[in-house]
Amino acid sequence: MADKFYSKENLRFLLHEVFHVEELCKREYFKEHSLENFDMIMEAADSLSTNHLRPILLEMDRNPPYMQNARIKVHPKMGELMKKFGEDGWISMSVPHEFGGQQVPFTILQATAFIMAAANYSPMAFAFLTTGAAHLIEAFGTKELQQTFIPKMMSGAWQGTMALTEPEAGSSLSDIVTSATPTADGHYLIRGQKIFISCGDHDACENIVHLMLARIEGAPAGTKGISLFVVPRLRPDEKGELVLNDVNTAGLFHKMGYHGAPIAHLIMGEKNDCRAYLVGEEHKGLSYMFHMMNEARIGVGMSATAIATAAYYNSLDYANVRLQGRKLTEKDPLKPQIPIIHHADVKRMLLFQKAVLEGSLALCLQACMYYDNSKTLEGEEKENNFLKMELLTPIVKSYPSEMSILTTSAALQVFGGYGFTKEYMAELFFRETRIHTLHEGTTAIHGMDLLGRKVMLKNGQATMLLMQDVFIDIEAAKKFESLKPYAEALEQKLTQLQELTMRLMGVAQKHGAEIFLSDATLYLELFGIIAVGWQWLKQGVVSEQEKTSSSKKYSAEFLQSKLLTLHFFFEYEMPKTEGLLTRLKSKNNVTVDAKPEEIV
Amino acid sequence: MADKFYSKENLRFLLHEVFHVEELCKREYFKEHSLENFDMIMEAADSLSTNHLRPILLEMDRNPPYMQNARIKVHPKMGELMKKFGEDGWISMSVPHEFGGQQVPFTILQATAFIMAAANYSPMAFAFLTTGAAHLIEAFGTKELQQTFIPKMMSGAWQGTMALTEPEAGSSLSDIVTSATPTADGHYLIRGQKIFISCGDHDACENIVHLMLARIEGAPAGTKGISLFVVPRLRPDEKGELVLNDVNTAGLFHKMGYHGAPIAHLIMGEKNDCRAYLVGEEHKGLSYMFHMMNEARIGVGMSATAIATAAYYNSLDYANVRLQGRKLTEKDPLKPQIPIIHHADVKRMLLFQKAVLEGSLALCLQACMYYDNSKTLEGEEKENNFLKMELLTPIVKSYPSEMSILTTSAALQVFGGYGFTKEYMAELFFRETRIHTLHEGTTAIHGMDLLGRKVMLKNGQATMLLMQDVFIDIEAAKKFESLKPYAEALEQKLTQLQELTMRLMGVAQKHGAEIFLSDATLYLELFGIIAVGWQWLKQGVVSEQEKTSSSKKYSAEFLQSKLLTLHFFFEYEMPKTEGLLTRLKSKNNVTVDAKPEEIV
Repeated sequence: MADKFYSKENLRFLLHEVFHVEELCKREYFKEHSLENFDMIMEAADSLSTNHLRPILLEMDRNPPYMQNARIKVHPKMGELMKKFGEDGWISMSVPHEFGGQQVPFTILQATAFIMAAANYSPMAFAFLTTGAAHLIEAFGTKELQQTFIPKMMSGAWQGTMALTEPEAGSSLSDIVTSATPTADGHYLIRGQKIFISCGDHDACENIVHLMLARIEGAPAGTKGISLFVVPRLRPDEKGELVLNDVNTAGLFHKMGYHGAPIAHLIMGEKNDCRAYLVGEEHKGLSYMFHMMNEARIGVGMSATAIATAAYYNSLDYANVRLQGRKLTEKDPLKPQIPIIHHADVKRMLLFQKAVLEGSLALCLQACMYYDNSKTLEGEEKENNFLKMELLTPIVKSYPSEMSILTTSAALQVFGGYGFTKEYMAELFFRETRIHTLHEGTTAIHGMDLLGRKVMLKNGQATMLLMQDVFIDIEAAKKFESLKPYAEALEQKLTQLQELTMRLMGVAQKHGAEIFLSDATLYLELFGIIAVGWQWLKQGVVSEQEKTSSSKKYSAEFLQSKLLTLHFFFEYEMPKTEGLLTRLKSKNNVTVDAKPEEIV
Repeated sequence: MADKFYSKENLRFLLHEVFHVEELCKREYFKEHSLENFDMIMEAADSLSTNHLRPILLEMDRNPPYMQNARIKVHPKMGELMKKFGEDGWISMSVPHEFGGQQVPFTILQATAFIMAAANYSPMAFAFLTTGAAHLIEAFGTKELQQTFIPKMMSGAWQGTMALTEPEAGSSLSDIVTSATPTADGHYLIRGQKIFISCGDHDACENIVHLMLARIEGAPAGTKGISLFVVPRLRPDEKGELVLNDVNTAGLFHKMGYHGAPIAHLIMGEKNDCRAYLVGEEHKGLSYMFHMMNEARIGVGMSATAIATAAYYNSLDYANVRLQGRKLTEKDPLKPQIPIIHHADVKRMLLFQKAVLEGSLALCLQACMYYDNSKTLEGEEKENNFLKMELLTPIVKSYPSEMSILTTSAALQVFGGYGFTKEYMAELFFRETRIHTLHEGTTAIHGMDLLGRKVMLKNGQATMLLMQDVFIDIEAAKKFESLKPYAEALEQKLTQLQELTMRLMGVAQKHGAEIFLSDATLYLELFGIIAVGWQWLKQGVVSEQEKTSSSKKYSAEFLQSKLLTLHFFFEYEMPKTEGLLTRLKSKNNVTVDAKPEEIV
């Protein structure tokens, strides 16, 4: 097993030099923090990941959850881990002081999540799902709900979940039918089913607390009639003792990877005794949930990047030690074989991974910084950062997720025939990351979100603001002779993207939503490549500055590797925009025009 | 489970209308065959696949092979199946009459292999690996070897294997170290190890016969010192009874898919009693093996196409029945949900699969026809067909294999969250097909084969001959108004490809082999897209002809679906050549220039 699963140096480079995360400590909300403090948190995440998460990755993969007596059993270490996540403050790190948390920036939370997910994705999900669920109660719940649930969740004793999906309501959330009937006692009674509930039942915690969407009887149809409830598996009775709350585990979904975390099928209210506590106001559930969805979506991009990063270092390690073949110019078969990293195509497969992953990580952190700025700045700046974060979110969710399928596949390919076997972990990462284009909205959903909503958000203000940030980095890059051609290439791509967007807005007006959005997935892909090109330029500027700086904080190899990878991205990845632009500009509406019966 | 795993109609369309497989029956060697006969063979393959192979696909996936008492155990049905493969003549179908076979064209063999692999890839591998191994004994073995081994192999009693790879000799076959020591009795004694031997040990046959590469003591280094041997697990003694031949199973490789077939690690000669029988002449083993490799490589392309085809029909079936969401223009949430096949992005994911798969299948059959022509025509035509087959082989091996990763991923995506679970079979196909870019030469090896050898084979004659065939189809397509734009687009792409090739030949002369071949994988990808575009044009011409033909052999929907998919290929896939051309024309040798220590 490769020891290295992420690069500490790269994460520090991004947080310190590229994104200046210490700027956040100037804000009132983060004033108790410092760069040193952030570094200590990173060290702690590294230690936790190295000593507790990574060592059980293979075990978890080989021993997936199972059902026993209508309950789900998970890996026996998960109980200890949840306690540790609670005691050491991981679950509560981003929670406000008033709820017992450390008020750590979202950027730092995500950076630690990156380290943990690179080590072992599943346990991290138990912890941060709980954080996400608790955030909803903090933000919208009553004092009583907060007091009852938050401390238990923060301690790791109670698992939190997001219970949205139903058998007939996946991408189409407006079709939720789980019902909530009000009672004279103030609580509601839930009846219905939920599927695909991550950590929806297991034996590593005392209790499971579902943040669940349901429709109050008589509510309006569609998205405007959905309310948010707290629905615990066990509810505290009058004496504070936990009693069964009529939430039953109907099944466990067996999956191709991500084996450490159980995905449950739940049935509520079979005995008409499933009590639920309304969060916030009636019928506003979906807006509350969306309030938290940006965080969750950025988290998915980060997790995909993390798993793919682990796959990269695994393959890099192998490429450096596996001997096979000789230089093409070496004709003597008696000469010793060379490490495969010397072969151009192996270097291509490695640099492809590195270019995509370090670009994705930067893009995720960029969105995190916009997020933290939107929470802690004031007035126009607050709003502007919020708009940029909103615009970037579908890209940050999707580019890393889609690309991680290809990069983990490239990592597997580096191993040759061994890649298909379980001798190394290449096949595990390839399976593990495949969830990410599906959960928290499929790629198609995010394509439509980007092109159909975000690009024209506030009459295109979000886009304009983001472009301003990109142009600042382009101008900075033009000052370096080595970066100028790439700065100009990116400038040209931005122009093409803007022209395309205008053209598509014309299509929307002239031909309607269906044709307008028919290739939204490709538009998302195009925007993603350009956005990651931007992040490479940004990293290029800092690398050039650091090369001549006296601080010598980064080794010459590290900085050279950054610039090399930037070249690779612009030489191998950026050209992919050409075919996408051609297709997106075409007037041939093949897919919309195709009748379902013609697809045979 | 979706019932349909391939399209009978499409296979018939390709064999009858596009490739006129009946032409082969005019050749002396195939004179006992007829189109009716071929159709009967297809029907038999369909029946075998539907009734015996498909029903155990899931079982085989869930119950992979395991070791017991130093032997490998496979699915209990495999024994019956091998008997059936033998008795019903599947193993011997392409074998000459003189060895008890039916002398069926390779094209027909591959068409049946396609059906079987679409149903369940693993059992098919047991059968056709045996055929391939027997072919080597037929072609190069002594009468005695032929009499001893071929009948047993044809009956399915004895498994045949190809034993090439060693721990330190995978892609670099010249590094084989397994040794063969001559004895006074005529046989050799083998010592060494082989890994990744498909069906290299199992309990479904009485015996396993390895066609094994080894180095005779004192042989020249490198590829010129490798000989081919028959090495049975059990050898017949003087009385004809089977005794152990000192071939031991050291291990079983656990894999991410393709679970029905065991991949073994073998150790020979631990007791210095592993007898081997030389096939053909000393030191010519690799050339014999290469003689059979085109068949094996075309077979890999066919299998990748087959698995991905099964994934396509699985997802198509789901898309037609799964209700989710409404038309984008429908704002009433009380209207019933619609089948997801109505959504443009779902149609895109389906047409992407169909365009790639039916194009791949046509390309594979094209190579098969060249193969059969090269075996049964005379003089220049024989040679010309051989050259075209040689040129196409790396593309036929690689394009379907690489693309099947993406198409099975698209199929999985159609299922939304269910795609990641084991509820449907989407995740199985995604795992199953991942072997194909690895075995029978990795994609990188085929890229170098194409650009470094095949494109300039006989001073470029192979390329010229293939281009002539493509231009015939382009001219035919230009006669149809509907196809003309695509014919012109393909013509332009061919010109660009030729210009690029000339340019790269200049690079080879000026900068040497390493820079020349550094992006051979991308060149292979480019050539593949263009070659499949050609196959779509060919199918387009026939579809247009059939539309107005009085025969009405194909439904209007089928022909319309063909033309729709052709449009899709040229609209969505062909543009991908643009970015590839840009990269391949670049003078920035990023990967060759990158030092291994700069990839961190």
